[in-house]
Amino acid sequence: MKPMGSIPAEFRGDGPLIIAGKTAEQWIQVAGDTPLFVYEAGMVTARIARLRAAMPAGIDVHYAIKANPFAPLIAAMAPLVDGLDIASKGEMALALAAKPGSAISFAGPGKRDDEIAAAVEAGVTLNLESEGEAKRALVAAERLGVTPRLAVRVNPEIELRGSGMRMGGRASPFGVDSDRAGALAKQVIAAGADWRGFHIFAGSQALDPQAIIETQAETLALAGRLADEVGVTPPLVNLGGGFGIPYFPGEEPIDVEAIGAALSERMTSLPDSLKGARFAIELGRWLVGEAGVYLTRVIDRKESRGEAFLVVDGGLHHQLAASGNFGTVVKRNYPVAVATAQKDAPVETVSVVGCLCTPLDRLADRVSLPEAHPGDVIAVFMAGAYGLSASPAAFLGHALPAQILAG
Amino acid sequence: MKPMGSIPAEFRGDGPLIIAGKTAEQWIQVAGDTPLFVYEAGMVTARIARLRAAMPAGIDVHYAIKANPFAPLIAAMAPLVDGLDIASKGEMALALAAKPGSAISFAGPGKRDDEIAAAVEAGVTLNLESEGEAKRALVAAERLGVTPRLAVRVNPEIELRGSGMRMGGRASPFGVDSDRAGALAKQVIAAGADWRGFHIFAGSQALDPQAIIETQAETLALAGRLADEVGVTPPLVNLGGGFGIPYFPGEEPIDVEAIGAALSERMTSLPDSLKGARFAIELGRWLVGEAGVYLTRVIDRKESRGEAFLVVDGGLHHQLAASGNFGTVVKRNYPVAVATAQKDAPVETVSVVGCLCTPLDRLADRVSLPEAHPGDVIAVFMAGAYGLSASPAAFLGHALPAQILAG
Repeated sequence: MKPMGSIPAEFRGDGPLIIAGKTAEQWIQVAGDTPLFVYEAGMVTARIARLRAAMPAGIDVHYAIKANPFAPLIAAMAPLVDGLDIASKGEMALALAAKPGSAISFAGPGKRDDEIAAAVEAGVTLNLESEGEAKRALVAAERLGVTPRLAVRVNPEIELRGSGMRMGGRASPFGVDSDRAGALAKQVIAAGADWRGFHIFAGSQALDPQAIIETQAETLALAGRLADEVGVTPPLVNLGGGFGIPYFPGEEPIDVEAIGAALSERMTSLPDSLKGARFAIELGRWLVGEAGVYLTRVIDRKESRGEAFLVVDGGLHHQLAASGNFGTVVKRNYPVAVATAQKDAPVETVSVVGCLCTPLDRLADRVSLPEAHPGDVIAVFMAGAYGLSASPAAFLGHALPAQILAG
Repeated sequence: MKPMGSIPAEFRGDGPLIIAGKTAEQWIQVAGDTPLFVYEAGMVTARIARLRAAMPAGIDVHYAIKANPFAPLIAAMAPLVDGLDIASKGEMALALAAKPGSAISFAGPGKRDDEIAAAVEAGVTLNLESEGEAKRALVAAERLGVTPRLAVRVNPEIELRGSGMRMGGRASPFGVDSDRAGALAKQVIAAGADWRGFHIFAGSQALDPQAIIETQAETLALAGRLADEVGVTPPLVNLGGGFGIPYFPGEEPIDVEAIGAALSERMTSLPDSLKGARFAIELGRWLVGEAGVYLTRVIDRKESRGEAFLVVDGGLHHQLAASGNFGTVVKRNYPVAVATAQKDAPVETVSVVGCLCTPLDRLADRVSLPEAHPGDVIAVFMAGAYGLSASPAAFLGHALPAQILAG
């Protein structure tokens, strides 16, 4: 038997799984079929409220819609956050449906000319990733007769310790190395652009609050040095995110209150060059990841050479990360449950495999679950971020799953 | 500098890359934009002809369309192969547009009732993955008043040595353990089904011909024992595939002639229980993988902490496997080239990164390439199988790439 991650507290309980007041079968009836994703809106709202309460005043909250671009979810979150962060023209269309261009910023190392022009025209802030991109943005703005909103994305010397994905502290395709970022800001100011400040993102998916506290302190110090160099207070300093969620055995939710307390203290002793600046924290996964549940029905139950398998009608084509094939080296088990299990069902060791005809399609490897049979429903948790949109949905020609914003 | 895999022989040369008689820029003009996939039809045709010449008479060739479900490619291949193998109702629709149901077989551990019914109705052979699936198929056929075409997929005790994905020799969600497969065949025969034989797939992506030769010999022996047990000659024995293609540094194409010679000899001494049976080899990747090239344009060129990066307008959303995030543990470099490079261009060490805002999106890590600049086109080879359809195309909201069947 292998361990699995912890089921989010909101979904724990003795009886069948309840999501926003309904059972799995009730949600399946709403959707019309399995598999499907259900996102519990109340959990997202609660995350935002908890973050607001923890963070000092003057800290904006941004949602990075790459984590989950489901339009009803974006619409529900937009009034609750200060900004939306996007990574393509496709995401820009989604964001502009929910927020004005002035509340949207666009990061990404390979922005095409047509994307740059569309963003400039819509008043979206471009987080410039290179000197070359700055030139292209200025040319596009000139042609359009628009003052472009330009921030400088910085590749910091800072590394977020223990983060699932490091984005700083090394040679990187993201942003401009910190020793050149001040000069680029001066250039865009001199060119007449509306300079929006700095975007500094050191990593993501960290679970150690102390690592985030240290990184935020170093990020503020770096922003202060850069602002000194530019000689202008940056309108906004995007401190990045990095707040992780506990996917795997032994992992714990991060203590955002501790992070907020440390940041509050740090804000009382800002360098002069940052006084009057606004600050933003940009989060994707932490806001929405735990709120999503992927529901998939057991099609077959089989035994092979002494092992039991539950074959479900979903799979890695919808939940690639749960199968251990996206950005993870060692395959570990996401939390899963038999959504339809009764309280005293016997427990067994079983693997949950998807319907795809590939050995990669394993959603849970030899976990301990209540005994399930064809017709039962399996819940895969932690499915709210980097789920459907980050999976190869067309692989093997299955239908797209339904998505429901619940509550 | 890190090594990369070898460019397929058909695409090697001194000057700019030529695919089916056209340059990259000419294909981009046909497509209207980058990124795009070009599949060279002549290479696929040549692979099929080479396989036919190498294999003994009486060996059918099947194409597993999961490798590449691009409809024009299936249409071009259908007249050249004996059968199409599918893994979903979606793939069934594609296959039925090109072949009659009697030439199509459907494998996959999680076939839904609606998929089973559709297959039975269309005269498609179901490769039964379990006793439970057999029951469901017989019930569906009874209800439809149709004699179902049923084969038994066997989980063999055989393991394909050195295969990229092992599917035999262990507890598995695929097929029925070999010690129960004969009994299941007898059951479906007794139930009045049109029993189509056995499907035995021990693994895929093997590059050692000796391993494939041994596996085929063991597979034939197993099929003989099973046929003895059933007491009926199986109409067809699908020997599986497993022929790999050389993606990575140091890998070599497999010697299909050696495999064919060994199989020819083996066919002269078949057990009595297999005399009169037909045999099939089922291939996906080997037929189409090398014929595909992914073309993506350089958007930006940047330096960071002493390293050079080419940022392209494609990425892992179209070519997940090339980024090392699909079924591989260690990231190694696929072969890539600057499609637009001139003969004597200076060479440098550079990383090719996609346009996605994630550090996972790296198509080539510190490889040696001719110096390239914005506007140049990068070719990622080995893009004909498990490319677009096996990638998270919706990730970060970029447009779908064009696909072209060339020649």
